[in-house]
Amino acid sequence: MKICHKYRVPIVPFSGGTSLEGHFIQTRNGITIDFRNMGEIIQLHQDDLDVVVQPAVGWELLNEYLEQYGLFFPPDPGPGAEIGGMIGTGCSGTNAARYGTMREWVLSLTVVLADGTIVKTRQRPRKSSAGYNLTNLIIGSEGTLGIVTEATLKLAVLPQETSVAVASFPSVKQATQAVQEIVRKGIPVAAVELLDKEMMKCINAAGQTSRDWREEHTLFFKFGGTPNGVKEQIKETRNVVKQFGSKSFEFAKSQTEREELWEARKEALWSTLAMGGDNDSCWTTDVAVPVSRLSEVVSETRADMDRSGILGTIVGHVGDGNFHAFILYNDTNKHIAEGIVHRLVERAIAMEGTCTGEHGVGMVKRPYLETELGKEAVDMMRRLKLALDPLRLLNADKVC
Amino acid sequence: MKICHKYRVPIVPFSGGTSLEGHFIQTRNGITIDFRNMGEIIQLHQDDLDVVVQPAVGWELLNEYLEQYGLFFPPDPGPGAEIGGMIGTGCSGTNAARYGTMREWVLSLTVVLADGTIVKTRQRPRKSSAGYNLTNLIIGSEGTLGIVTEATLKLAVLPQETSVAVASFPSVKQATQAVQEIVRKGIPVAAVELLDKEMMKCINAAGQTSRDWREEHTLFFKFGGTPNGVKEQIKETRNVVKQFGSKSFEFAKSQTEREELWEARKEALWSTLAMGGDNDSCWTTDVAVPVSRLSEVVSETRADMDRSGILGTIVGHVGDGNFHAFILYNDTNKHIAEGIVHRLVERAIAMEGTCTGEHGVGMVKRPYLETELGKEAVDMMRRLKLALDPLRLLNADKVC
Ligand SMILES: Cc1cc2nc3c(=O)[nH]c(=O)nc-3n(C[C@H](O)[C@H](O)[C@H](O)COP(=O)(O)OP(=O)(O)OC[C@H]3O[C@@H](n4cnc5c(N)ncnc54)[C@H](O)[C@@H]3O)c2cc1C
Ligand SMILES: Cc1cc2nc3c(=O)[nH]c(=O)nc-3n(C[C@H](O)[C@H](O)[C@H](O)COP(=O)(O)OP(=O)(O)OC[C@H]3O[C@@H](n4cnc5c(N)ncnc54)[C@H](O)[C@@H]3O)c2cc1C
Repeated sequence: MKICHKYRVPIVPFSGGTSLEGHFIQTRNGITIDFRNMGEIIQLHQDDLDVVVQPAVGWELLNEYLEQYGLFFPPDPGPGAEIGGMIGTGCSGTNAARYGTMREWVLSLTVVLADGTIVKTRQRPRKSSAGYNLTNLIIGSEGTLGIVTEATLKLAVLPQETSVAVASFPSVKQATQAVQEIVRKGIPVAAVELLDKEMMKCINAAGQTSRDWREEHTLFFKFGGTPNGVKEQIKETRNVVKQFGSKSFEFAKSQTEREELWEARKEALWSTLAMGGDNDSCWTTDVAVPVSRLSEVVSETRADMDRSGILGTIVGHVGDGNFHAFILYNDTNKHIAEGIVHRLVERAIAMEGTCTGEHGVGMVKRPYLETELGKEAVDMMRRLKLALDPLRLLNADKVC
Repeated sequence: MKICHKYRVPIVPFSGGTSLEGHFIQTRNGITIDFRNMGEIIQLHQDDLDVVVQPAVGWELLNEYLEQYGLFFPPDPGPGAEIGGMIGTGCSGTNAARYGTMREWVLSLTVVLADGTIVKTRQRPRKSSAGYNLTNLIIGSEGTLGIVTEATLKLAVLPQETSVAVASFPSVKQATQAVQEIVRKGIPVAAVELLDKEMMKCINAAGQTSRDWREEHTLFFKFGGTPNGVKEQIKETRNVVKQFGSKSFEFAKSQTEREELWEARKEALWSTLAMGGDNDSCWTTDVAVPVSRLSEVVSETRADMDRSGILGTIVGHVGDGNFHAFILYNDTNKHIAEGIVHRLVERAIAMEGTCTGEHGVGMVKRPYLETELGKEAVDMMRRLKLALDPLRLLNADKVC
């Protein structure tokens, strides 16, 4: 059943944190919001570069659908993520270096508030100064302010040409300095991702890719644009990585090579998991810092993990100063993993960074919000939460 | 006096709507927030592409300062506008077609709330999912939720090469269709501006530019990028405008020609004002629609103004489906101008557009907010307003 705008339905608490597909919510007055039917692409507006979708549409499926029109939706988080959850976390992914995050790619939302009011946040123009930015208040609110039942998303035109390149570096410092230089020069790379040495070792050991990799700190680049534009980007990037001591720079000359070179990036998490052994759990965390602090934060985190005696890998959307650590642990050494994560978060915050660049606050990072933003900002968030959900029905005890 | 984060100062009502330079606010407990000292560029972070400024810094001055570092701040509204006011309206300008609006270019704000609490909305990473997006709640809130005392702005790298082109068209329909095709093709023009036939006539009549212009519906383009990139953009744009019946396409081959070709765009408002005669007032208004409705909304508005018997011109950031109407009137025929504006706003809203793309709601457009967004969305805004400013001290009766 599609939610009808004329109802103002009081709804029951929403637990959140799982994909909505397959779930339904029984409202107090007996109306059912059936998320099993929330996986439809409702309407593509090809000329306006936007599309109206329901929250259980996956971004991968959406992009498969859009390809025939020469369009795509840039935010590319984890496999299987769906629009509702992506709005919930204010996610991003590898494309954020060029295209920005979820915050820049949502035009309008239909949201059910805690008291059942149904709000459409905005009409469909690309630009509007009409009132408060309700759309962006909901994005990143982790299901605590309302349930999204429909979203109008901006789309981008698929670039005429794309390519991929890989460069390895003797030190994390040189790799991250190369990234800083690329940002500073404004080379419009579509993505720049760091996989550290430990990560490259895991990828070789897991053997899930079609080739062997240099076990060095490695940058993966995506390029997109006109054929000439891509050539220019590759040339400029090659110059920069050379300047910062890269001993190898390889770029794809065909679709097959493109996929082959990107394979390692795709297999990062799974390759780390494959090295688990006794460690049956993996803590994935993310932080972001101003790009100028990237070198420092990554080096210190690498050293901390090395000292800890348990395996941790680093992979990052470093063009945004954002990266993830994957830390393997079990019940016995969980406190060690915890220690690494907590020090990482504190390190990032001390460098004017954030406790989460993409994944959201949830429950684990909630105590850090105040360290990062101050009591006043968190209080302001609480005032907003209570204004919209005074009974704290929606995802209570998350975020703030 | 700089506001110190340790104070929580209850402050008196803020009238808003005028530049803050030269004003100061006396707080109830005797502390003075002196906006005369609010015009400083506090710190440039060159490597992070961001800058910390006070609200009375003008965007033009900021860009003069940034040029030596090869950087710029993209949002380019009216001459004399200052960062505080630009945040207040969520402004944009000609560069929005490529770079987006103010909403995408502010990293963090320091805001004094109505009860004197001082909030810093965010630290300095390019990307964060840490809690609600307070920054974007303040942007576009027209001084109704808090007073901005400091802003950290994202910066862009100045393109290596820029150019300008001008194309004129026999009909508004063909001009706007060319724009739609450019958007659909994803040609990354830096700006595309429409000046309609009446506007071009005013520009010739006012004689403030160094040349005479064809009195036809005219598109002005800005290009930016690498030398090859700019060449490609010009070539693709030329093909499109030809396809839609443009009989002239002229592009700048030097800095002087660039300035000369852009002159007409710059003189638009002043040239209209110069034609005032008996009409001593000019109503400037703005709306935005999905790009696919641009042709329709501009044609109908043109026809409405022609029928009215008073002079109105149209100039627009049409790449975003956004445009302005400048309507000349006096005390006697004010009702005619009003009629045009009100019909324009209703027309835009009926086309899934907005009553304001850039200028904000203020008092005049307040009644339209509900027509555009529905009672539920405006109620949600009111709940947020009352949560942060229960006594309605800040810019009461504006927005919602
Ligand atoms: C291998 C791997 C790689 C990843 N890479 C990235 C990456 O590069 N970038 C990135 O950002 N993330 C990444 N992630 C994390 C994940 O993909 C994102 O956080 C994504 O946004 C979650 O989507 P989901 O559908 O799984 O959401 P869920 O986990 O189901 O929900 C996420 C949040 O949104 C809320 N929510 C869900 N639906 C709604 C709704 N309809 N209305 C309101 N709130 C709702 C939930 O309450 C919850 O708080 C990765 C994950 C994996 C496993
Ligand atoms: C010739 C001309 C061309 C223009 N072109 C454009 C254009 O292309 N695009 C565009 O967007 N606009 C345009 N404008 C309008 C204008 O430039 C913008 O609206 C601009 O954002 C206003 O800035 P200001 O400093 O004049 O703000 P003000 O008019 O002083 O204030 C604007 C709003 O912000 C609030 N405010 C001011 N300072 C603060 C603060 N410190 N904290 C909180 N709130 C504050 C005020 O209360 C008010 O609601 C144009 C104007 C002219 C005259």
